[in-house]
This record gives sequence, structure tokens and C-alpha cells, in this order.
Amino acid sequence: MDRADTLELPEITRVRVIYADTDQMGFVYYGNYLRYFEVARTELLRQVGMPYRDFEQREKRQLPVIEAALRYRRAARYDDELALCAAVDHVASNSRFVRFLYAIRRVDADGRPGEHLVDGHTVHACIDAEGKVTRLPPALRDAISARALPPPPAPAPGT
Amino acid sequence: MDRADTLELPEITRVRVIYADTDQMGFVYYGNYLRYFEVARTELLRQVGMPYRDFEQREKRQLPVIEAALRYRRAARYDDELALCAAVDHVASNSRFVRFLYAIRRVDADGRPGEHLVDGHTVHACIDAEGKVTRLPPALRDAISARALPPPPAPAPGT
Amino acid sequence: MDRADTLELPEITRVRVIYADTDQMGFVYYGNYLRYFEVARTELLRQVGMPYRDFEQREKRQLPVIEAALRYRRAARYDDELALCAAVDHVASNSRFVRFLYAIRRVDADGRPGEHLVDGHTVHACIDAEGKVTRLPPALRDAISARALPPPPAPAPGT
Amino acid sequence: MDRADTLELPEITRVRVIYADTDQMGFVYYGNYLRYFEVARTELLRQVGMPYRDFEQREKRQLPVIEAALRYRRAARYDDELALCAAVDHVASNSRFVRFLYAIRRVDADGRPGEHLVDGHTVHACIDAEGKVTRLPPALRDAISARALPPPPAPAPGT
Repeated sequence: MDRADTLELPEITRVRVIYADTDQMGFVYYGNYLRYFEVARTELLRQVGMPYRDFEQREKRQLPVIEAALRYRRAARYDDELALCAAVDHVASNSRFVRFLYAIRRVDADGRPGEHLVDGHTVHACIDAEGKVTRLPPALRDAISARALPPPPAPAPGT
Repeated sequence: MDRADTLELPEITRVRVIYADTDQMGFVYYGNYLRYFEVARTELLRQVGMPYRDFEQREKRQLPVIEAALRYRRAARYDDELALCAAVDHVASNSRFVRFLYAIRRVDADGRPGEHLVDGHTVHACIDAEGKVTRLPPALRDAISARALPPPPAPAPGT
Repeated sequence: MDRADTLELPEITRVRVIYADTDQMGFVYYGNYLRYFEVARTELLRQVGMPYRDFEQREKRQLPVIEAALRYRRAARYDDELALCAAVDHVASNSRFVRFLYAIRRVDADGRPGEHLVDGHTVHACIDAEGKVTRLPPALRDAISARALPPPPAPAPGT
Repeated sequence: MDRADTLELPEITRVRVIYADTDQMGFVYYGNYLRYFEVARTELLRQVGMPYRDFEQREKRQLPVIEAALRYRRAARYDDELALCAAVDHVASNSRFVRFLYAIRRVDADGRPGEHLVDGHTVHACIDAEGKVTRLPPALRDAISARALPPPPAPAPGT
């Protein structure tokens, strides 16, 4: 089970669903939620002081995605306002990968994040200018550690 | 582990990567592989005699996605020709869900499916005109059973 | 020549360019500016008190596009913040069409709309529930008239 | 008036409309026709022996779009097969620009290009590795001249 199921992820930013995002079923096209995940991830990195554009330019690193997963619970509709919630998972000090968790919620009539629509995660490898997988640079690790989730609890004995 | 890892999925159709599908990393944007999955799924249904448009109109059913997962191994690039491979997973007779497996491979210089780029799966619920989850209609079950994968082997005793 | 050339269009809203919008040239894909035009048009209608979703539902009308044009002067890049500027052209009282003008500008270091990147226009027909072209309903005409551009000057005698 | 209005453009290739391309009006989203224009343009260049990827790599040139226009006559729907028709406009020997004309037609029940749905054009500047506008290289001019439209007739005296 995904940890996003049991965690309340903080809201990062909001988007409005436009016609371009919908399909003829009248809902957001299933692939477009990965756009929203990108918006959430990008704004989260900006909020911790490490905009992804700067990361690419200063650190000469990239974070290509190696895995993505989505669960679709309810559909977002045209003109819905969506609260994009996200967090970074705990990063070990020698880690070469980083994992983001997402939850997309419909903003309700009170202007608050309401119904859970879609959640999921992405995993990214850190690669250097030659494309080799490498450790996350300390600057990134420090930036996200303030916002990262706590490490998962060690399993209790006997489980 | 995904069954697609251990299975050679049949090629369904091919697409050519256009500029629209790439991003500034020079590769296909991670969300666009879900477009390719849709192309593969749609053509597979057409090949088994149940085009999805007819399914919606005749059977008054829809197959909204409830889950998607992707693993990105290598990146597709501009102007690559891609072989879209797919299969339907075994469907039990009273099933209300259907699961598609996908593998996207780069067509090599000999014109054959070569390197594995991305694979994954989607799961779809069958809903009726009121939006209620319902059994797959026999017409769809029959159509896909010819192409469906065999049921997974029962686990050996002791595992 | 387009009237947008000679007019300073008001800023309606802002968007941030994400990876999804770029292509391997490193700039925003040429078709995605029509997404930005939609965002500008939608928010303009919301600001004049006639959100497009309400228009469809209350007035039983739609505004499908019948013409679009774009001029690309400079390219928007990844992570640029864009100021989306737009206006409605003057609408005659018996008009069955409405025309929007757009200008997309890069937000500069001072946080103000700077360089002109792309401009253009779209023309929309007003159709009723049967798909027949019909006059713009007074509710829409009134809403946009506050923000509409003045009618173009009558040509001087002799031109 | 656009010359595409009065010319029968040759069919270049076909595409099938997928859910991803539609919007909640049930038709292809207006911006996605620029994807189809790209597919037609790319395949046309491949057919005349100058694939765009090779053009970029061998000639160290790019052809960014500087202008696009579309007229929407009828809407393409989900699962329609579309015939993408295109031609290059006449290119003068010292030209620094190239213009493509497009017509998108619905394939009819007999498998032939039928109803005209959308037509338009794009204009592209030729730029070198420094981004400076430059003449079209002879290799490109020769390749497209076989397929280019004849030069427009000189205006009759008195018009």
C-alpha cells in the first residue's frame, strides 16, 4: 500500500481544469494527472528553495522519472479547482533516488481541499551530465529534508 | 512484480514520436506514454472485434481507468518509431474489472521491436449508464478471451 | 493586420511553463499556446461574471472556435512565468460571433509583463443546443461589453 | 484568402483520433489540430527524402514556426480516421521562410478522404545554430521543390 493512503499531504498549489485537460467522457484525461503531479513537484521544490531549473543549471544534475503510479478514485471535471498536495519521501544520506507522493483533491464550496480524486507517486533517479546514476547532491538533500516525510517506522518484531 | 516483466507481449501497432510528445530533456514527456498505452489498448480492442466506440454505444458501458502504473527504463526520442505491445490479462467470468499490460519498444534498424523502453499496466472498472460498477458484458469478455493471457499459475504448495 | 498589434491588452492571469509544455527545442510547443489562450479566455469570462461553465449550463449555448491565428515572436522557455493578456473585440448587438485577442508576455525580473512572445486571436460562433448558429444571448453580450474593445474607427473618407 | 481553399492538397498520412485528443464537447480539442499539422509536415518531409531529424543534424538548421492559422469547419470526433493532407508552398531561391498548407479530412465509409474538417497553414523561419535567420539550405529547397505548389499566378493587369 502506498504511504499516501495514510498520510495527509500538505497542499502545495492549485490549478483550474481547462477544456484542454478533459476528454469526451467529460472528465480529466487519465494521462493529464501526471501534468498536475509535475506542477506539484515543481512548486514543492521551489518552496524549499531549490527550483528545478536552478538544480539542473547549478548542480548539473537531472531527475528523470523511473516509475509512476496513479490511483483514480473520483474524476476531476471541467472548471474544477484542484488542490495539488505533495510531499517528498524520506531520503537516506547516500540515496540516488527520490520519491514524491501526491494527492489531488477537489476544492470544495468553502474553498478548502475536499474530496480525494487521484493519488500516486513518482520515483526519480539522480543522473549526472553523462547520464550516470549518482547520489543526490547535498544541496538538494538538505533542501528537501525540511519537508520530507519521516522515515517509515521499523516493522515491529514478529510482523 | 508485474507479469509484463516475464511475458513477451505481442505488438499491436506502431507510432512515430513527434515534437509534441517530447520535452526539453529531448525525450518523450513521462505523461505521454499514457497516450501510447491508450493507442495500444484501443487498437487491441479493435483487433478482437470490439472497437471501444461500439462498446460504449452498443453495450452502454464505459471502462474508466482506476489504476495505472509505468516503469521507465529507457527514454524514447524524437522521431523514434515505437512498437506498442499489449495484452489483456485473464478475466474471470464474473469480473467487474479488466487489466491491460503494455510494453513500449523502440523499432530497431531492421524494423523489428527492439529495446524495451517503458512498460506498465492499467486497470479499468466496467460501469453502466448510471455509473455503477457492473460485470463485464459477455460480448466484451468473449472478444478479449481469445487474446487474453492465461490465468496466472496457482502458487505451488509451500510458497 | 491584427488589432492586437497596436493595442495594449490587459493582463488576465499568469501561468508557469512546465516540462509538459516544452518540446526538445527547449521551448514551449507551438500548439500549447492555444492552451494558454484558453486559460486567458476562460478567466476573462469569469472576471466579467460569466464563467463559461455557467454559460453552457444556463444559456444552453456553446462557443466553439471557428478560427485561430498565432504569431510567434519569441519563445517561452521552461519555468518562465507568463502574463496572459486578453480582450474581447467589440460585439455588435445582433452578432452571432465573438472574437478574442491575446498577447502572451514573459514576466520580467521586476514581476511585470515584459517581452511580447506570442499574440493572436480566436473567433467563436455561438451555437444553440441543436448546433445551430445563433445570436449571442444578451447576458453574455452585456457581460463582455464592459471589457470589450471600442469598435474600430470608421475608415476615413477616401481610404 | 488562403490558397488551401482553392487547392486540392495531396494526402500525406492518416491518424486515428484517441480520447487524449478530445475534450468534453466530444470533439478534438482546438489546439490538437496543430499536432496533426506537425504529423503531416514531418511525414511530407520524410517522403521527399529530408526527414526533419536529419535536417537538424546534417544541416545544423532548425525551422521554428513563426505563424500559424487554422479554420475549423467541422469537428473531428473520437475514433474518426483522419486524412492529413499537406503541401509546401512555392519557395523562391533566396527564401528564408517556408510555408506549409494543410487540410484535415474525415475518411469516409469507402476509405477515402471525405469531409473537410480543418485547414490552415504554418510559416517557418530557417535559423542556423546561432539562432540567426538564414536562407533555406539548397538540400532542403531541392527536396521540397518536387512537391511544392506552383508559384501563385502574377496578378492580372488592373487588379
